[in-house]
Amino acid sequence: MNHERNLPEGWSVLSSQYLQHEAWLTVRCEQLKLPNGHIIPRYFVLEYPDWVNTIAMTPDGQFVLVRQYRHAIGGTAYELCAGVADPTDATPMEAARRELLEETGYGGGEWIPWMQIAPNPATSDNWVHCFLARKVEKIAAPKPEPSEQISVHLFDRKQLKAMLLDGSIIQATHLAPLWKFFAEER
Amino acid sequence: MNHERNLPEGWSVLSSQYLQHEAWLTVRCEQLKLPNGHIIPRYFVLEYPDWVNTIAMTPDGQFVLVRQYRHAIGGTAYELCAGVADPTDATPMEAARRELLEETGYGGGEWIPWMQIAPNPATSDNWVHCFLARKVEKIAAPKPEPSEQISVHLFDRKQLKAMLLDGSIIQATHLAPLWKFFAEER
Repeated sequence: MNHERNLPEGWSVLSSQYLQHEAWLTVRCEQLKLPNGHIIPRYFVLEYPDWVNTIAMTPDGQFVLVRQYRHAIGGTAYELCAGVADPTDATPMEAARRELLEETGYGGGEWIPWMQIAPNPATSDNWVHCFLARKVEKIAAPKPEPSEQISVHLFDRKQLKAMLLDGSIIQATHLAPLWKFFAEER
Repeated sequence: MNHERNLPEGWSVLSSQYLQHEAWLTVRCEQLKLPNGHIIPRYFVLEYPDWVNTIAMTPDGQFVLVRQYRHAIGGTAYELCAGVADPTDATPMEAARRELLEETGYGGGEWIPWMQIAPNPATSDNWVHCFLARKVEKIAAPKPEPSEQISVHLFDRKQLKAMLLDGSIIQATHLAPLWKFFAEER
């Protein structure tokens, strides 16, 4: 694409090409012009599908978390159950329900959209759809992908709060919905 | 690097090479072996410097936010003042002070580390150091980079809370410290 394309706020794209286009890494390199005339010669946009995650609570008020090794930081942490919204998922909520069932074996319950956030609006074109699911129950055995090694853990509200404060949970896209939960759900 | 390297939790790196290595985009492609023997042929790690952001409050309880166009999502949103920790910054807090002064002209005040989070521990190797700065004051004119077009805005606590709820602030690494603020600082 080599003809100028106008963007909001007076920005424009002067050129655009894909550097990489494969599963798990799609990168667009663009030349941008700012409203002040400044040119950014190589601006990189990472293209991803939307992601989902869920604050899942059992009927007795336990929170369903997973724990897994995360290679980019070379460490292991507790997380919300999360994943990618596949083209075969009818809605982001269906994707979140499917991920919860696959990764933890929990299902059912009462689901509401909790928040929608951008993992990084400067570099990544996707959104994370966060859900709050109450009264989920263990209805199956977990069936993780062969590329996943995930363990499932239950914590009560007091334990979860302590884990937010002590660095047991580190992922920004999980901390945002969890801290919102502690701010809003008393 | 083509000799096996052991990782935590029984994972190992079988090979590793850089696909891209330039300002704003450094990508490592690695072949990984899981503890279950499964091989991930191409796992991508994005290497970034650490980032910083700051919840900055004036003596009369106004919050200092910025607003800018974010190209990956093609939209404009309110944000905390944020940036990259440069090698010349003595500490992440110094980086956050420098960014606040450059982008907004606010400085001084009483600073504490607020939280440290991973923007994405699966894909990105860096951390975000978040700070809470009270009693900052306007001490200079903003001096943004030519590649930035930033406007500065003040909001009171009630307005800020409403903006968290209505989608005016979308960035996960900013929502986490802000929702923690509303959960913890009454």
